[in-house]
Amino acid sequence: MIKYMRSYLYRQLEPGVWESGLSPLNKTIAVLIVLASIIAILETEVIVRSLSPGFFYYAELLFIILFSVEYMTRLFIAGEQPKYSGFNGRIRFLFSRWSLIDLVAILPFILTLGGTNLVVVRLLKFLRLIRLLRLGPMGEAWSLMEEAITRRKYELILSFGVAGFLLIFSAALIYLAESTVQPEEFGSIPRSLWWAVATLTTVGYGDVAPITVTGRIFAGFSAAAGIGIVAMPTGILAAAFSDAFQRRQRK
Amino acid sequence: MIKYMRSYLYRQLEPGVWESGLSPLNKTIAVLIVLASIIAILETEVIVRSLSPGFFYYAELLFIILFSVEYMTRLFIAGEQPKYSGFNGRIRFLFSRWSLIDLVAILPFILTLGGTNLVVVRLLKFLRLIRLLRLGPMGEAWSLMEEAITRRKYELILSFGVAGFLLIFSAALIYLAESTVQPEEFGSIPRSLWWAVATLTTVGYGDVAPITVTGRIFAGFSAAAGIGIVAMPTGILAAAFSDAFQRRQRK
Amino acid sequence: MIKYMRSYLYRQLEPGVWESGLSPLNKTIAVLIVLASIIAILETEVIVRSLSPGFFYYAELLFIILFSVEYMTRLFIAGEQPKYSGFNGRIRFLFSRWSLIDLVAILPFILTLGGTNLVVVRLLKFLRLIRLLRLGPMGEAWSLMEEAITRRKYELILSFGVAGFLLIFSAALIYLAESTVQPEEFGSIPRSLWWAVATLTTVGYGDVAPITVTGRIFAGFSAAAGIGIVAMPTGILAAAFSDAFQRRQRK
Amino acid sequence: MIKYMRSYLYRQLEPGVWESGLSPLNKTIAVLIVLASIIAILETEVIVRSLSPGFFYYAELLFIILFSVEYMTRLFIAGEQPKYSGFNGRIRFLFSRWSLIDLVAILPFILTLGGTNLVVVRLLKFLRLIRLLRLGPMGEAWSLMEEAITRRKYELILSFGVAGFLLIFSAALIYLAESTVQPEEFGSIPRSLWWAVATLTTVGYGDVAPITVTGRIFAGFSAAAGIGIVAMPTGILAAAFSDAFQRRQRK
Repeated sequence: MIKYMRSYLYRQLEPGVWESGLSPLNKTIAVLIVLASIIAILETEVIVRSLSPGFFYYAELLFIILFSVEYMTRLFIAGEQPKYSGFNGRIRFLFSRWSLIDLVAILPFILTLGGTNLVVVRLLKFLRLIRLLRLGPMGEAWSLMEEAITRRKYELILSFGVAGFLLIFSAALIYLAESTVQPEEFGSIPRSLWWAVATLTTVGYGDVAPITVTGRIFAGFSAAAGIGIVAMPTGILAAAFSDAFQRRQRK
Repeated sequence: MIKYMRSYLYRQLEPGVWESGLSPLNKTIAVLIVLASIIAILETEVIVRSLSPGFFYYAELLFIILFSVEYMTRLFIAGEQPKYSGFNGRIRFLFSRWSLIDLVAILPFILTLGGTNLVVVRLLKFLRLIRLLRLGPMGEAWSLMEEAITRRKYELILSFGVAGFLLIFSAALIYLAESTVQPEEFGSIPRSLWWAVATLTTVGYGDVAPITVTGRIFAGFSAAAGIGIVAMPTGILAAAFSDAFQRRQRK
Repeated sequence: MIKYMRSYLYRQLEPGVWESGLSPLNKTIAVLIVLASIIAILETEVIVRSLSPGFFYYAELLFIILFSVEYMTRLFIAGEQPKYSGFNGRIRFLFSRWSLIDLVAILPFILTLGGTNLVVVRLLKFLRLIRLLRLGPMGEAWSLMEEAITRRKYELILSFGVAGFLLIFSAALIYLAESTVQPEEFGSIPRSLWWAVATLTTVGYGDVAPITVTGRIFAGFSAAAGIGIVAMPTGILAAAFSDAFQRRQRK
Repeated sequence: MIKYMRSYLYRQLEPGVWESGLSPLNKTIAVLIVLASIIAILETEVIVRSLSPGFFYYAELLFIILFSVEYMTRLFIAGEQPKYSGFNGRIRFLFSRWSLIDLVAILPFILTLGGTNLVVVRLLKFLRLIRLLRLGPMGEAWSLMEEAITRRKYELILSFGVAGFLLIFSAALIYLAESTVQPEEFGSIPRSLWWAVATLTTVGYGDVAPITVTGRIFAGFSAAAGIGIVAMPTGILAAAFSDAFQRRQRK
């Protein structure tokens, strides 16, 4: 009886075992993860929380129970796989990659019941969605994008390296031009980096901006370099995707 | 006599029946839609409206009459198609997709005669242009872009999903760093989302910006991630267009 | 003697007749155009002009004489081409495309001697550079880019059309959300367009920004749509250039 | 004995001689260059420097000694290559490209011992990393990117030329519209360039923005042109990378 139940739950819970795509149970879990995250997000807002502090407390309690039950069940069904069967197998399972992520996703939840300070850790629950996304209708797209990026990882790292160098160089130049005029904002290279990041990524908040003529000329060149910093990885990704699509078609 | 007129109007009004491109009557309607929209837009500005309140009132009245006549005529000529002939056919026609869009395009017009509060609904008239655009000289380009996007829809959805995750994560990190210093703007994750959207899309209004060192470091990484968020869909679209162009050439 | 001189000047002045690239005389003219433009730009700045008002007056006088002489010479040598020979041919030459551009480039110069108000018209001189650029080392690159853009002009126009529609729609939505709170900036759709342009192009000045929750949600979607507006033409151009490069290689 | 040591050091120090990738000694030097740069950057910040002025003084002294020793050693081992052997060969070596860069990287270091004003020159040390990067695991990616860019250099230069023209034209138009209203910021074309750069690169600081209706209409077109300025080089790079990837695969 227990054996049959374990086998049934294994087929439902273990991603990749269900015939096609996501099993109904895993779909439900995916929805629960999203819901729990939305509640964790909304809870940080005082106005929303004050509407019904009880609701958030009990909602969290519910999610903790649900995800704990799920975690226990995963531990229980792990025995279906030979490598995780037996006591030693279970220990090995506890330290397997996805199992640790599952744990990280419940632990802070339990520790911070009713508090909001560990919200970022709680959002790590999202990582669990990746495992499920790979099986759903997006599976093919996911692996294609993964392939495109990993095949061109050196080019991408290199273009980020060049971007990093330009970042430091821009910060150094603007520091030379503006440090005496705006010491609070451009008084050192580390300080100037804030402006340099905003400029080179073309975000341009405008809370800090050069006011000297030299500073503005340097800034102009930095902004122009920013186009290159956007164009470089975009071009690499475009070529990588083009490549990956064609490889698929040939098969 | 009526039969001949119906057949003549059918050829003129029904998009796709005219030999090549857009019939003269449909071209006129396209121009009228654009004109009516421009007037609806200008009318929202008090300075413009006060120049001649009468003009806008009568212009609207004229457009309502014209588009109502057009709507009636479309209902009348629908009988040319076997599936819409007879009374039941006409009822079916009334609830067909484009017929509903046509209705949505006149109704608010009639309801808000002289008022400006439903201006967004009135701009839905633009949707009718899509139907006509597909027949004109842009028809080929339209279908090519539609094909490129639909063939890579999963990759595009996925890259928007990743963007959404980064959005929430950035908002959570900046909330941790800045909530105590700028509670009004970063006091909760929902509040921080406004900054996160502006940063990750590289818009960067600058009305809200981190001021702590940790906040600025997180912001720098968010801005860098913003480049990825722009680069990802651009790369996918570039590869998709490249693919679509080549498929056309092979034919 | 005159015939020989005309033939010599024709080979020097007429772009495309010189064996390879740009003739020495045309190179000199290109440099003069750039110089005259730089002086026209610098002259608008009071601080620079006050350094030496005489310099700018005489520099302009010199350029007017030089370009007038060039214009006369072009008229004189036009006779080398059968279609422009004789009096009627010269009249035809005067109204040919490049001849009119040459005229537009000197006329405002003469009319505004010493003034700066027609500076934009004077910058039209730059257009003359295009004619010369096509012959220099950039010639191949120029024609390749021209080919890529013209072959995909419908797709590019369409993507600008979609951008235009999103622009109006964003402006209409933000107008609904913010018109009562910030009537000065979002009090009508035409007013809201300023914000919509800055957001959809991801420029984001931040001089105008929504402050209501609804306004910020609409703004978030507009900013996300802005990524699409950048990604669309970039993707089309990437595919078009890829196509054009390959067509060259096949030849 | 000296001969053997020279040969050993030559194999360790000369990039490209070591069997595969980077020799252990060159890896150490790469790390030292990065460390020395980080210290040079941090030293500009008063708060950091005041923590321990002595540390920075002695750290710099150490780096000067290390890099000087390295420089001397390079000079010593240059004799291993026939073209740099002998006294005249060494002189030739001193004026070879990489040797000059090495010198530029130590000289300011020595000159500004304990000062921070030549920080930009000191960051030129980074240039030395390029030489080492080409041998490491990034070597292939580096040469691929170099190839893609150099093969399309004319197209890239041309697109920057067009961007430059649009920059001047935008500045001229905004100058016409805004010079009387905001003379401080738009009173001349050179002044307006600051706004034009921020707009066309889509950085958009917002410290300067047009306020007249005409100015805003011109600004809208400039911002739209900004999309083209980003799209153009991105499209060229995407096509160039696509081309370079395919050429590699064919081999």
